[in-house]
Amino acid sequence: MTRRFALMIDPAASDDVRADFADTFTLVDAAAPALSVGELSTQRGDGVFESIGVVDGHAQEVVPHLERLAHSAALCDLPLPNRAQWHQAIERAAEHCEAGEYVIKLILSRGVEHGPTPTAWATAAPASDFTAVRERGIRVVTLDRGYDLDVAANASWLLLGAKTLSYAVNMAALREAHRRGADDAIFLSRDGFVLEAPTASLILRLDDRFVTPAPNGGILHGTTQLSVYEYLTDRGLAAEYARVPASDLSRADAAWLVSSVRLAAPITAVDGVELPVDHALTADLNRYLLSPRD
Amino acid sequence: MTRRFALMIDPAASDDVRADFADTFTLVDAAAPALSVGELSTQRGDGVFESIGVVDGHAQEVVPHLERLAHSAALCDLPLPNRAQWHQAIERAAEHCEAGEYVIKLILSRGVEHGPTPTAWATAAPASDFTAVRERGIRVVTLDRGYDLDVAANASWLLLGAKTLSYAVNMAALREAHRRGADDAIFLSRDGFVLEAPTASLILRLDDRFVTPAPNGGILHGTTQLSVYEYLTDRGLAAEYARVPASDLSRADAAWLVSSVRLAAPITAVDGVELPVDHALTADLNRYLLSPRD
Ligand SMILES: Cc1ncc(COP(=O)(O)O)c(C=O)c1O
Ligand SMILES: Cc1ncc(COP(=O)(O)O)c(C=O)c1O
Repeated sequence: MTRRFALMIDPAASDDVRADFADTFTLVDAAAPALSVGELSTQRGDGVFESIGVVDGHAQEVVPHLERLAHSAALCDLPLPNRAQWHQAIERAAEHCEAGEYVIKLILSRGVEHGPTPTAWATAAPASDFTAVRERGIRVVTLDRGYDLDVAANASWLLLGAKTLSYAVNMAALREAHRRGADDAIFLSRDGFVLEAPTASLILRLDDRFVTPAPNGGILHGTTQLSVYEYLTDRGLAAEYARVPASDLSRADAAWLVSSVRLAAPITAVDGVELPVDHALTADLNRYLLSPRD
Repeated sequence: MTRRFALMIDPAASDDVRADFADTFTLVDAAAPALSVGELSTQRGDGVFESIGVVDGHAQEVVPHLERLAHSAALCDLPLPNRAQWHQAIERAAEHCEAGEYVIKLILSRGVEHGPTPTAWATAAPASDFTAVRERGIRVVTLDRGYDLDVAANASWLLLGAKTLSYAVNMAALREAHRRGADDAIFLSRDGFVLEAPTASLILRLDDRFVTPAPNGGILHGTTQLSVYEYLTDRGLAAEYARVPASDLSRADAAWLVSSVRLAAPITAVDGVELPVDHALTADLNRYLLSPRD
Protein backbone atom coordinates (compact mmCIF):
# COMPACT_ATOMS: atom_id res chain seq x y z
CA MET A 1 0.00 0.00 0.00
CA THR A 2 1.43 3.39 -0.93
CA ARG A 3 1.69 6.06 1.73
CA ARG A 4 0.87 9.00 -0.55
CA PHE A 5 -2.23 8.82 -2.67
CA ALA A 6 -3.86 11.02 -5.30
CA LEU A 7 -7.09 10.68 -7.21
CA MET A 8 -8.22 12.92 -10.07
CA ILE A 9 -11.98 13.51 -9.92
CA ASP A 10 -14.00 14.21 -13.03
CA PRO A 11 -16.62 16.51 -11.48
CA ALA A 12 -20.18 15.25 -11.81
CA ALA A 13 -23.20 17.53 -11.88
CA SER A 14 -24.55 18.03 -8.37
CA ASP A 15 -27.85 16.35 -9.33
CA ASP A 16 -26.19 13.25 -10.80
CA VAL A 17 -27.56 10.54 -8.49
CA ARG A 18 -26.01 7.10 -8.67
CA ALA A 19 -24.62 4.37 -6.48
CA ASP A 20 -21.12 4.38 -7.84
CA PHE A 21 -18.89 7.20 -9.08
CA ALA A 22 -15.84 4.95 -9.55
CA ASP A 23 -15.66 5.70 -13.27
CA THR A 24 -15.16 9.40 -12.49
CA PHE A 25 -11.99 8.70 -10.49
CA THR A 26 -8.51 8.21 -11.91
CA LEU A 27 -5.72 7.12 -9.62
CA VAL A 28 -2.53 9.11 -10.21
CA ASP A 29 0.96 9.01 -8.77
CA ALA A 30 1.08 11.78 -6.13
CA ALA A 31 4.72 12.51 -6.90
CA ALA A 32 4.41 12.49 -10.68
CA PRO A 33 3.13 15.29 -12.92
CA ALA A 34 -0.68 15.30 -12.89
CA LEU A 35 -1.69 18.91 -13.59
CA SER A 36 -1.04 21.05 -16.65
CA VAL A 37 0.61 24.47 -16.43
CA GLY A 38 -2.71 25.94 -17.62
CA GLU A 39 -4.37 25.02 -14.29
CA LEU A 40 -6.08 28.12 -12.84
CA SER A 41 -5.49 26.78 -9.33
CA THR A 42 -1.81 27.31 -9.90
CA GLN A 43 -2.00 30.45 -12.09
CA ARG A 44 -4.53 32.32 -9.96
CA GLY A 45 -5.12 30.39 -6.74
CA ASP A 46 -8.58 30.08 -8.25
CA GLY A 47 -10.40 27.27 -6.50
CA VAL A 48 -11.44 25.99 -3.09
CA PHE A 49 -10.18 23.25 -0.80
CA GLU A 50 -10.63 21.27 2.39
CA SER A 51 -8.15 19.48 4.66
CA ILE A 52 -9.66 16.55 6.53
CA GLY A 53 -8.05 14.72 9.44
CA VAL A 54 -7.90 10.93 9.26
CA VAL A 55 -7.39 8.86 12.39
CA ASP A 56 -6.68 5.14 12.01
CA GLY A 57 -8.30 5.14 8.59
CA HIS A 58 -11.40 7.08 9.67
CA ALA A 59 -11.94 10.43 7.92
CA GLN A 60 -13.26 12.88 10.52
CA GLU A 61 -16.27 15.19 10.14
CA VAL A 62 -16.74 14.44 6.48
CA VAL A 63 -20.18 16.06 6.29
CA PRO A 64 -19.17 19.46 7.74
CA HIS A 65 -16.14 19.49 5.43
CA LEU A 66 -18.31 18.75 2.40
CA GLU A 67 -20.76 21.42 3.52
CA ARG A 68 -17.98 23.97 3.75
CA LEU A 69 -16.60 22.89 0.36
CA ALA A 70 -20.05 23.55 -1.13
CA HIS A 71 -20.28 26.90 0.68
CA SER A 72 -16.85 27.95 -0.60
CA ALA A 73 -17.73 26.82 -4.13
CA ALA A 74 -20.93 28.89 -4.04
CA LEU A 75 -19.03 31.99 -2.86
CA CYS A 76 -16.60 31.49 -5.76
CA ASP A 77 -19.28 30.84 -8.43
CA LEU A 78 -17.94 27.32 -8.92
CA PRO A 79 -20.30 24.47 -9.79
CA LEU A 80 -21.66 22.86 -6.62
CA PRO A 81 -19.71 19.71 -5.78
CA ASN A 82 -21.69 16.47 -5.99
CA ARG A 83 -21.68 15.37 -2.35
CA ALA A 84 -22.11 11.66 -3.02
CA GLN A 85 -19.23 11.71 -5.49
CA TRP A 86 -16.89 13.56 -3.13
CA HIS A 87 -17.95 11.30 -0.29
CA GLN A 88 -16.87 8.30 -2.33
CA ALA A 89 -13.58 10.00 -3.23
CA ILE A 90 -12.90 10.52 0.48
CA GLU A 91 -13.71 6.87 1.18
CA ARG A 92 -11.30 5.80 -1.55
CA ALA A 93 -8.59 8.07 -0.13
CA ALA A 94 -9.22 6.87 3.42
CA GLU A 95 -8.70 3.25 2.34
CA HIS A 96 -5.11 4.21 1.60
CA CYS A 97 -4.48 5.68 5.04
CA GLU A 98 -2.76 3.31 7.44
CA ALA A 99 -2.93 3.37 11.24
CA GLY A 100 -2.12 6.74 12.82
CA GLU A 101 -2.90 10.21 11.55
CA TYR A 102 -3.28 11.21 7.91
CA VAL A 103 -4.62 14.20 6.06
CA ILE A 104 -6.97 14.05 3.08
CA LYS A 105 -7.09 17.15 0.92
CA LEU A 106 -9.93 17.95 -1.46
CA ILE A 107 -9.33 20.48 -4.20
CA LEU A 108 -11.87 21.95 -6.60
CA SER A 109 -10.15 24.25 -9.09
CA ARG A 110 -11.73 26.44 -11.75
CA GLY A 111 -9.95 24.19 -14.23
CA VAL A 112 -7.62 24.75 -17.10
CA GLU A 113 -7.52 28.23 -18.68
CA HIS A 114 -10.20 28.49 -21.38
CA GLY A 115 -11.13 24.90 -20.52
CA PRO A 116 -14.67 23.61 -20.24
CA THR A 117 -14.86 22.30 -16.66
CA PRO A 118 -13.36 22.55 -13.22
CA THR A 119 -10.53 20.24 -12.26
CA ALA A 120 -10.79 18.32 -9.02
CA TRP A 121 -8.67 15.95 -7.05
CA ALA A 122 -8.17 14.40 -3.65
CA THR A 123 -4.93 13.44 -1.96
CA ALA A 124 -3.99 11.53 1.18
CA ALA A 125 -0.67 11.73 2.99
CA PRO A 126 0.68 11.06 6.47
CA ALA A 127 0.12 14.00 8.85
CA SER A 128 2.99 15.64 10.70
CA ASP A 129 3.37 14.53 14.31
CA PHE A 130 1.60 17.14 16.45
CA THR A 131 1.71 15.20 19.74
CA ALA A 132 4.20 17.57 21.38
CA VAL A 133 2.40 20.69 20.15
CA ARG A 134 -0.92 19.41 21.54
CA GLU A 135 0.69 18.92 24.94
CA ARG A 136 3.18 21.75 25.24
CA GLY A 137 1.25 24.34 23.28
CA ILE A 138 2.13 27.21 20.99
CA ARG A 139 3.20 30.84 21.28
CA VAL A 140 1.27 33.19 19.03
CA VAL A 141 1.52 36.79 17.85
CA THR A 142 -1.33 38.99 16.68
CA LEU A 143 -1.23 40.37 13.14
CA ASP A 144 -3.45 42.93 11.44
CA ARG A 145 -5.65 41.35 8.73
CA GLY A 146 -6.25 44.80 7.26
CA TYR A 147 -10.07 44.54 7.13
CA ASP A 148 -12.67 45.99 9.44
CA LEU A 149 -14.94 43.34 10.96
CA ASP A 150 -17.97 44.43 8.92
CA VAL A 151 -16.27 44.35 5.51
CA ALA A 152 -17.48 40.88 4.56
CA ALA A 153 -21.13 41.87 4.70
CA ASN A 154 -20.97 44.21 1.70
CA ALA A 155 -18.14 42.92 -0.44
CA SER A 156 -18.78 39.32 -1.49
CA TRP A 157 -15.94 39.54 -4.06
CA LEU A 158 -13.43 39.60 -1.19
CA LEU A 159 -14.41 35.93 -0.71
CA LEU A 160 -14.16 36.22 3.06
CA GLY A 161 -15.55 33.01 4.53
CA ALA A 162 -14.52 30.93 1.51
CA LYS A 163 -11.66 28.47 1.89
CA THR A 164 -9.97 29.40 -1.37
CA LEU A 165 -6.63 28.25 -2.76
CA SER A 166 -5.41 31.87 -2.50
CA TYR A 167 -3.58 31.37 0.81
CA ALA A 168 -0.39 33.34 0.09
CA VAL A 169 -1.30 35.87 2.81
CA ASN A 170 -2.03 33.10 5.32
CA MET A 171 1.35 31.53 4.57
CA ALA A 172 3.12 34.92 4.82
CA ALA A 173 1.48 35.51 8.21
CA LEU A 174 2.88 32.19 9.46
CA ARG A 175 6.37 33.15 8.25
CA GLU A 176 6.01 36.54 9.99
CA ALA A 177 5.01 34.75 13.21
CA HIS A 178 8.10 32.53 12.98
CA ARG A 179 10.27 35.60 12.36
CA ARG A 180 8.90 37.03 15.59
CA GLY A 181 9.83 33.86 17.46
CA ALA A 182 6.28 32.53 17.66
CA ASP A 183 4.68 29.34 16.37
CA ASP A 184 1.50 30.79 14.93
CA ALA A 185 -0.47 34.00 14.37
CA ILE A 186 -3.89 35.35 15.27
CA PHE A 187 -5.38 37.79 12.79
CA LEU A 188 -7.04 40.91 14.19
CA SER A 189 -9.49 43.03 12.24
CA ARG A 190 -8.37 46.60 11.54
CA ASP A 191 -10.91 47.79 14.10
CA GLY A 192 -9.47 45.62 16.83
CA PHE A 193 -11.47 42.39 16.93
CA VAL A 194 -10.12 38.87 17.03
CA LEU A 195 -10.63 36.86 13.82
CA GLU A 196 -8.86 33.51 13.35
CA ALA A 197 -5.42 32.04 12.77
CA PRO A 198 -4.07 31.60 9.22
CA THR A 199 -5.03 27.90 9.30
CA ALA A 200 -7.04 27.46 12.52
CA SER A 201 -9.93 28.81 14.56
CA LEU A 202 -9.53 30.41 17.97
CA ILE A 203 -11.44 29.41 21.10
CA LEU A 204 -11.08 31.35 24.38
CA ARG A 205 -12.23 30.48 27.86
CA LEU A 206 -13.29 33.59 29.78
CA ASP A 207 -14.26 32.54 33.34
CA ASP A 208 -16.69 29.70 32.77
CA ARG A 209 -17.77 30.50 29.21
CA PHE A 210 -16.13 29.53 25.96
CA VAL A 211 -16.09 32.13 23.20
CA THR A 212 -15.11 32.01 19.53
CA PRO A 213 -15.27 34.86 16.98
CA ALA A 214 -18.57 34.71 15.06
CA PRO A 215 -18.01 33.40 11.51
CA ASN A 216 -20.15 36.21 10.06
CA GLY A 217 -17.11 38.42 10.60
CA GLY A 218 -15.63 37.13 7.41
CA ILE A 219 -13.76 34.15 8.78
CA LEU A 220 -14.10 30.43 8.11
CA HIS A 221 -16.49 28.40 10.16
CA GLY A 222 -14.09 25.79 11.51
CA THR A 223 -15.25 22.18 11.54
CA THR A 224 -13.00 21.49 14.55
CA GLN A 225 -14.43 24.45 16.45
CA LEU A 226 -17.90 23.05 15.73
CA SER A 227 -16.86 19.66 17.12
CA VAL A 228 -15.29 21.20 20.21
CA TYR A 229 -18.47 23.21 20.83
CA GLU A 230 -20.51 20.02 20.57
CA TYR A 231 -18.21 18.40 23.11
CA LEU A 232 -18.46 21.37 25.48
CA THR A 233 -22.21 21.88 25.27
CA ASP A 234 -22.79 18.12 25.72
CA ARG A 235 -21.03 18.59 29.06
CA GLY A 236 -23.30 21.50 29.98
CA LEU A 237 -20.68 24.18 29.39
CA ALA A 238 -21.55 27.56 27.86
CA ALA A 239 -20.05 27.99 24.39
CA GLU A 240 -20.83 31.14 22.42
CA TYR A 241 -20.13 33.04 19.23
CA ALA A 242 -19.32 36.70 19.77
CA ARG A 243 -17.49 39.80 18.63
CA VAL A 244 -14.26 39.30 20.54
CA PRO A 245 -12.25 42.47 21.24
CA ALA A 246 -8.48 41.99 21.03
CA SER A 247 -8.21 42.90 24.72
CA ASP A 248 -9.97 39.61 25.57
CA LEU A 249 -6.88 37.69 24.48
CA SER A 250 -4.66 38.72 27.36
CA ARG A 251 -7.40 38.24 29.96
CA ALA A 252 -8.40 34.75 28.77
CA ASP A 253 -8.29 31.92 31.31
CA ALA A 254 -7.26 29.57 28.53
CA ALA A 255 -7.13 29.66 24.73
CA TRP A 256 -6.68 27.21 21.88
CA LEU A 257 -6.11 27.22 18.16
CA VAL A 258 -8.15 24.35 16.75
CA SER A 259 -7.98 22.82 13.27
CA SER A 260 -8.65 19.56 11.51
CA VAL A 261 -5.17 18.06 11.50
CA ARG A 262 -3.25 19.72 14.36
CA LEU A 263 -6.44 19.53 16.49
CA ALA A 264 -6.43 21.53 19.77
CA ALA A 265 -3.18 23.43 20.38
CA PRO A 266 -3.21 25.31 23.71
CA ILE A 267 -1.89 28.87 23.47
CA THR A 268 0.87 29.53 26.00
CA ALA A 269 1.57 33.18 25.13
CA VAL A 270 0.10 35.99 23.04
CA ASP A 271 2.54 38.67 21.87
CA GLY A 272 4.96 37.57 24.57
CA VAL A 273 2.42 37.69 27.41
CA GLU A 274 2.00 34.29 29.06
CA LEU A 275 -1.48 32.72 29.14
CA PRO A 276 -2.65 30.03 31.60
CA VAL A 277 -2.92 26.56 30.03
CA ASP A 278 -5.69 24.14 31.00
CA HIS A 279 -3.75 20.92 30.50
CA ALA A 280 -6.54 18.60 31.65
CA LEU A 281 -9.18 20.06 29.34
CA THR A 282 -6.69 20.21 26.45
CA ALA A 283 -5.98 16.49 26.85
CA ASP A 284 -9.72 15.77 26.99
CA LEU A 285 -10.36 17.80 23.84
CA ASN A 286 -7.61 16.07 21.88
CA ARG A 287 -8.74 12.66 23.08
CA TYR A 288 -12.22 13.54 21.84
CA LEU A 289 -10.93 14.96 18.54
CA LEU A 290 -8.89 11.79 17.96
CA SER A 291 -11.92 9.55 18.47
CA PRO A 292 -13.95 8.63 15.38
CA ARG A 293 -16.48 11.38 14.62
CA ASP A 294 -18.83 11.88 11.69
CA MET B 1 6.20 25.30 -34.67
CA THR B 2 3.74 24.76 -31.84
CA ARG B 3 1.49 27.63 -30.80
CA ARG B 4 1.50 26.85 -27.08
CA PHE B 5 4.78 26.44 -25.34
CA ALA B 6 5.93 25.59 -21.81
CA LEU B 7 9.35 25.37 -20.26
CA MET B 8 10.13 24.09 -16.76
CA ILE B 9 12.93 26.10 -15.17
CA ASP B 10 15.25 24.60 -12.59
CA PRO B 11 15.89 27.74 -10.51
CA ALA B 12 19.54 28.77 -10.35
CA ALA B 13 21.02 30.73 -7.45
CA SER B 14 20.82 34.45 -8.14
CA ASP B 15 24.64 34.73 -8.12
CA ASP B 16 25.15 31.89 -10.60
CA VAL B 17 26.85 33.75 -13.47
CA ARG B 18 27.23 31.95 -16.77
CA ALA B 19 26.66 32.41 -20.47
CA ASP B 20 24.15 29.66 -20.96
CA PHE B 21 21.35 28.33 -18.74
CA ALA B 22 20.02 25.93 -21.37
CA ASP B 23 20.68 22.88 -19.16
CA THR B 24 18.29 24.31 -16.53
CA PHE B 25 15.37 24.34 -18.98
CA THR B 26 13.13 21.39 -19.83
CA LEU B 27 10.62 21.74 -22.62
CA VAL B 28 7.22 20.29 -21.66
CA ASP B 29 3.91 19.85 -23.45
CA ALA B 30 1.72 22.79 -22.32
CA ALA B 31 -1.41 20.65 -22.49
CA ALA B 32 0.01 17.58 -20.73
CA PRO B 33 0.48 17.04 -16.99
CA ALA B 34 3.63 18.83 -15.84
CA LEU B 35 3.01 19.68 -12.18
CA SER B 36 2.43 17.38 -9.23
CA VAL B 37 -0.59 17.72 -6.94
CA GLY B 38 1.84 18.65 -4.15
CA GLU B 39 2.63 21.99 -5.86
CA LEU B 40 2.17 24.82 -3.37
CA SER B 41 1.21 27.16 -6.21
CA THR B 42 -1.91 25.10 -6.64
CA GLN B 43 -2.55 24.20 -2.99
CA ARG B 44 -1.96 27.67 -1.56
CA GLY B 45 -1.57 30.14 -4.44
CA ASP B 46 1.91 30.40 -2.96
CA GLY B 47 4.18 31.96 -5.54
CA VAL B 48 4.59 34.98 -7.80
CA PHE B 49 4.12 35.60 -11.49
CA GLU B 50 4.42 37.97 -14.43
CA SER B 51 2.50 38.26 -17.71
CA ILE B 52 4.54 39.75 -20.52
CA GLY B 53 3.15 40.97 -23.84
CA VAL B 54 4.85 39.72 -27.00
CA VAL B 55 4.42 41.58 -30.29
CA ASP B 56 5.70 39.94 -33.48
CA GLY B 57 8.09 37.81 -31.51
CA HIS B 58 9.41 40.66 -29.35
CA ALA B 59 8.86 40.34 -25.59
CA GLN B 60 8.01 43.81 -24.25
CA GLU B 61 9.56 45.49 -21.22
CA VAL B 62 11.42 42.41 -20.09
CA VAL B 63 13.59 44.28 -17.58
CA PRO B 64 10.72 45.96 -15.65
CA HIS B 65 8.90 42.61 -15.56
CA LEU B 66 11.98 40.83 -14.18
CA GLU B 67 12.44 43.64 -11.66
CA ARG B 68 8.86 43.24 -10.47
CA LEU B 69 9.27 39.45 -10.32
CA ALA B 70 12.29 39.96 -8.05
CA HIS B 71 10.36 42.50 -5.95
CA SER B 72 7.41 40.11 -5.56
CA ALA B 73 9.77 37.24 -4.70
CA ALA B 74 11.42 39.35 -2.00
CA LEU B 75 8.05 40.31 -0.48
CA CYS B 76 7.15 36.59 -0.38
CA ASP B 77 10.50 35.42 1.06
CA LEU B 78 11.16 33.43 -2.10
CA PRO B 79 14.72 33.04 -3.40
CA LEU B 80 15.63 35.90 -5.72
CA PRO B 81 15.23 34.85 -9.35
CA ASN B 82 18.44 34.72 -11.39
CA ARG B 83 17.81 37.50 -13.92
CA ALA B 84 20.10 36.14 -16.63
CA GLN B 85 18.43 32.73 -16.38
CA TRP B 86 14.91 34.14 -16.58
CA HIS B 87 15.96 36.42 -19.40
CA GLN B 88 17.08 33.38 -21.37
CA ALA B 89 13.85 31.57 -20.56
CA ILE B 90 11.89 34.53 -21.95
CA GLU B 91 14.05 34.50 -25.10
CA ARG B 92 13.39 30.79 -25.55
CA ALA B 93 9.66 31.34 -25.10
CA ALA B 94 9.63 34.33 -27.48
CA GLU B 95 11.20 32.18 -30.21
CA HIS B 96 8.00 30.15 -30.18
CA CYS B 97 5.75 33.16 -30.66
CA GLU B 98 4.69 33.76 -34.24
CA ALA B 99 3.64 37.06 -35.79
CA GLY B 100 0.90 38.92 -33.90
CA GLU B 101 0.33 39.14 -30.17
CA TYR B 102 1.29 36.53 -27.61
CA VAL B 103 1.59 36.38 -23.86
CA ILE B 104 4.53 34.92 -21.97
CA LYS B 105 3.86 33.98 -18.35
CA LEU B 106 6.57 33.49 -15.76
CA ILE B 107 5.75 31.57 -12.61
CA LEU B 108 7.91 31.13 -9.53
CA SER B 109 6.18 28.85 -7.01
CA ARG B 110 7.30 27.91 -3.51
CA GLY B 111 7.64 24.41 -4.88
CA VAL B 112 6.32 21.04 -3.87
CA GLU B 113 5.13 20.61 -0.27
CA HIS B 114 8.07 19.63 1.97
CA GLY B 115 10.24 19.82 -1.16
CA PRO B 116 13.69 21.35 -1.27
CA THR B 117 13.36 24.10 -3.90
CA PRO B 118 10.93 26.39 -5.64
CA THR B 119 9.34 25.27 -8.89
CA ALA B 120 9.46 27.61 -11.86
CA TRP B 121 8.18 27.65 -15.38
CA ALA B 122 7.43 29.88 -18.34
CA THR B 123 4.66 29.55 -20.90
CA ALA B 124 3.82 31.24 -24.17
CA ALA B 125 0.40 31.29 -25.82
CA PRO B 126 -1.48 33.44 -28.34
CA ALA B 127 -3.11 36.49 -26.73
CA SER B 128 -6.83 37.16 -27.04
CA ASP B 129 -7.73 39.73 -29.67
CA PHE B 130 -8.14 43.05 -27.85
CA THR B 131 -8.34 45.26 -30.97
CA ALA B 132 -12.01 46.13 -30.46
CA VAL B 133 -11.59 46.76 -26.72
CA ARG B 134 -8.68 49.12 -27.36
CA GLU B 135 -10.82 51.13 -29.78
CA ARG B 136 -14.30 50.96 -28.30
CA GLY B 137 -13.29 50.91 -24.65
CA ILE B 138 -14.66 49.35 -21.50
CA ARG B 139 -17.31 50.07 -18.92
CA VAL B 140 -16.13 49.70 -15.34
CA VAL B 141 -17.65 49.56 -11.87
CA THR B 142 -15.95 50.49 -8.61
CA LEU B 143 -15.58 47.82 -5.94
CA ASP B 144 -14.40 48.10 -2.33
CA ARG B 145 -11.00 46.42 -1.81
CA GLY B 146 -11.65 46.39 1.93
CA TYR B 147 -8.32 47.96 2.95
CA ASP B 148 -7.53 51.51 3.97
CA LEU B 149 -4.90 53.13 1.77
CA ASP B 150 -2.25 53.10 4.51
CA VAL B 151 -2.59 49.41 5.41
CA ALA B 152 0.33 48.24 3.28
CA ALA B 153 2.87 50.33 5.19
CA ASN B 154 2.57 48.35 8.43
CA ALA B 155 1.47 44.88 7.39
CA SER B 156 4.00 43.33 5.02
CA TRP B 157 2.34 39.90 5.43
CA LEU B 158 -0.67 41.16 3.47
CA LEU B 159 1.70 41.03 0.47
CA LEU B 160 0.20 44.19 -1.02
CA GLY B 161 2.39 45.21 -3.94
CA ALA B 162 3.43 41.62 -4.69
CA LYS B 163 2.08 39.94 -7.82
CA THR B 164 1.25 36.65 -6.11
CA LEU B 165 -0.54 33.64 -7.50
CA SER B 166 -3.32 34.26 -4.94
CA TYR B 167 -5.62 36.07 -7.37
CA ALA B 168 -8.97 34.52 -6.39
CA VAL B 169 -10.24 37.92 -5.17
CA ASN B 170 -9.12 39.63 -8.38
CA MET B 171 -10.97 36.99 -10.42
CA ALA B 172 -14.08 37.31 -8.22
CA ALA B 173 -14.05 41.08 -8.72
CA LEU B 174 -14.06 40.59 -12.49
CA ARG B 175 -17.02 38.21 -12.22
CA GLU B 176 -18.83 40.76 -10.02
CA ALA B 177 -18.16 43.46 -12.64
CA HIS B 178 -19.63 41.23 -15.35
CA ARG B 179 -22.67 40.53 -13.17
CA ARG B 180 -23.19 44.28 -12.95
CA GLY B 181 -23.06 44.58 -16.74
CA ALA B 182 -19.56 46.04 -16.84
CA ASP B 183 -16.35 44.82 -18.47
CA ASP B 184 -13.96 45.48 -15.64
CA ALA B 185 -13.62 46.79 -12.09
CA ILE B 186 -11.69 49.48 -10.28
CA PHE B 187 -10.82 48.75 -6.66
CA LEU B 188 -11.32 51.55 -4.14
CA SER B 189 -9.68 51.62 -0.74
CA ARG B 190 -12.03 51.47 2.24
CA ASP B 191 -11.28 55.13 2.92
CA GLY B 192 -12.30 56.18 -0.57
CA PHE B 193 -9.18 56.31 -2.72
CA VAL B 194 -8.70 54.81 -6.15
CA LEU B 195 -6.35 51.80 -6.28
CA GLU B 196 -6.11 49.69 -9.46
CA ALA B 197 -8.12 47.21 -11.50
CA PRO B 198 -7.94 43.47 -10.72
CA THR B 199 -5.44 42.99 -13.58
CA ALA B 200 -4.56 46.51 -14.75
CA SER B 201 -3.41 49.95 -13.61
CA LEU B 202 -5.53 53.08 -13.89
CA ILE B 203 -4.44 56.34 -15.51
CA LEU B 204 -6.66 59.44 -15.42
CA ARG B 205 -6.38 62.69 -17.33
CA LEU B 206 -7.54 65.65 -15.23
CA ASP B 207 -7.33 68.81 -17.36
CA ASP B 208 -3.81 68.68 -18.77
CA ARG B 209 -2.19 66.41 -16.18
CA PHE B 210 -2.11 62.64 -16.08
CA VAL B 211 -2.50 60.99 -12.70
CA THR B 212 -2.15 57.41 -11.48
CA PRO B 213 -2.54 56.09 -7.91
CA ALA B 214 0.87 55.96 -6.19
CA PRO B 215 2.08 52.34 -5.91
CA ASN B 216 3.02 52.86 -2.24
CA GLY B 217 -0.69 52.52 -1.55
CA GLY B 218 -0.34 48.78 -1.69
CA ILE B 219 -0.93 48.27 -5.39
CA LEU B 220 1.30 46.86 -8.12
CA HIS B 221 3.58 49.16 -10.00
CA GLY B 222 2.37 48.50 -13.54
CA THR B 223 5.00 48.08 -16.23
CA THR B 224 2.54 49.40 -18.82
CA GLN B 225 1.76 52.47 -16.72
CA LEU B 226 5.53 53.09 -16.51
CA SER B 227 5.80 52.87 -20.31
CA VAL B 228 2.84 55.16 -20.84
CA TYR B 229 4.35 57.70 -18.44
CA GLU B 230 7.62 57.57 -20.38
CA TYR B 231 5.67 58.21 -23.58
CA LEU B 232 3.77 61.14 -22.04
CA THR B 233 6.72 62.84 -20.35
CA ASP B 234 8.81 62.47 -23.53
CA ARG B 235 6.12 64.61 -25.15
CA GLY B 236 6.36 67.24 -22.40
CA LEU B 237 3.12 66.21 -20.71
CA ALA B 238 2.74 66.24 -16.91
CA ALA B 239 2.34 62.72 -15.49
CA GLU B 240 2.14 62.26 -11.72
CA TYR B 241 1.65 59.76 -8.92
CA ALA B 242 -0.89 60.82 -6.34
CA ARG B 243 -3.50 59.85 -3.79
CA VAL B 244 -6.55 59.83 -6.05
CA PRO B 245 -9.89 60.33 -4.31
CA ALA B 246 -12.74 58.27 -5.80
CA SER B 247 -14.51 61.51 -6.72
CA ASP B 248 -11.78 62.15 -9.33
CA LEU B 249 -13.13 59.27 -11.41
CA SER B 250 -16.33 60.97 -12.50
CA ARG B 251 -14.64 64.31 -13.19
CA ALA B 252 -11.82 62.82 -15.31
CA ASP B 253 -11.39 64.16 -18.85
CA ALA B 254 -10.29 60.71 -19.92
CA ALA B 255 -9.27 57.47 -18.22
CA TRP B 256 -7.62 54.18 -19.17
CA LEU B 257 -6.95 50.79 -17.71
CA VAL B 258 -3.48 49.76 -18.88
CA SER B 259 -1.84 46.34 -18.69
CA SER B 260 0.77 44.28 -20.48
CA VAL B 261 -1.43 42.27 -22.81
CA ARG B 262 -4.67 44.22 -23.26
CA LEU B 263 -2.59 47.47 -23.36
CA ALA B 264 -4.55 50.77 -23.12
CA ALA B 265 -8.31 50.28 -22.80
CA PRO B 266 -10.18 53.60 -22.64
CA ILE B 267 -12.86 53.75 -19.95
CA THR B 268 -16.23 54.79 -21.36
CA ALA B 269 -18.25 54.71 -18.12
CA VAL B 270 -17.69 54.37 -14.37
CA ASP B 271 -20.60 52.98 -12.35
CA GLY B 272 -22.93 53.84 -15.23
CA VAL B 273 -21.75 57.45 -15.58
CA GLU B 274 -20.31 58.12 -19.05
CA LEU B 275 -16.73 59.38 -19.33
CA PRO B 276 -15.26 61.27 -22.31
CA VAL B 277 -12.94 59.15 -24.46
CA ASP B 278 -9.82 60.59 -26.07
CA HIS B 279 -9.77 58.41 -29.17
CA ALA B 280 -6.73 60.06 -30.75
CA LEU B 281 -4.50 59.71 -27.70
CA THR B 282 -5.75 56.17 -27.07
CA ALA B 283 -4.75 55.18 -30.61
CA ASP B 284 -1.34 56.84 -30.13
CA LEU B 285 -0.80 55.02 -26.83
CA ASN B 286 -1.67 51.63 -28.28
CA ARG B 287 0.49 52.24 -31.34
CA TYR B 288 3.34 53.05 -28.97
CA LEU B 289 2.63 50.07 -26.72
CA LEU B 290 2.59 47.77 -29.77
CA SER B 291 5.99 49.00 -30.95
CA PRO B 292 9.06 47.08 -29.74
CA ARG B 293 10.11 48.34 -26.30
CA ASP B 294 12.75 47.10 -23.89
C1 LIG C 1 -8.37 30.36 7.78
C2 LIG C 1 -8.77 29.13 8.54
N1 LIG C 1 -9.57 29.24 9.61
C3 LIG C 1 -9.95 28.16 10.32
C4 LIG C 1 -9.55 26.88 9.97
C5 LIG C 1 -9.97 25.71 10.80
O1 LIG C 1 -10.91 24.94 10.10
P1 LIG C 1 -11.09 23.40 10.39
O2 LIG C 1 -11.29 23.25 11.84
O3 LIG C 1 -12.28 23.01 9.61
O4 LIG C 1 -9.83 22.70 9.95
C6 LIG C 1 -8.74 26.71 8.85
C7 LIG C 1 -8.30 25.37 8.43
O5 LIG C 1 -7.37 25.25 7.63
C8 LIG C 1 -8.35 27.86 8.11
O6 LIG C 1 -7.57 27.75 7.02
C1 LIG D 1 -3.36 43.93 -9.84
C2 LIG D 1 -2.67 44.41 -11.07
N1 LIG D 1 -2.41 45.72 -11.20
C3 LIG D 1 -1.81 46.20 -12.30
C4 LIG D 1 -1.44 45.37 -13.36
C5 LIG D 1 -0.81 45.96 -14.58
O1 LIG D 1 0.56 45.59 -14.63
P1 LIG D 1 1.32 45.51 -16.02
O2 LIG D 1 1.12 46.80 -16.72
O3 LIG D 1 2.75 45.31 -15.63
O4 LIG D 1 0.77 44.37 -16.80
C6 LIG D 1 -1.69 44.01 -13.25
C7 LIG D 1 -1.31 43.09 -14.35
O5 LIG D 1 -1.77 41.98 -14.39
C8 LIG D 1 -2.30 43.51 -12.09
O6 LIG D 1 -2.57 42.20 -11.94
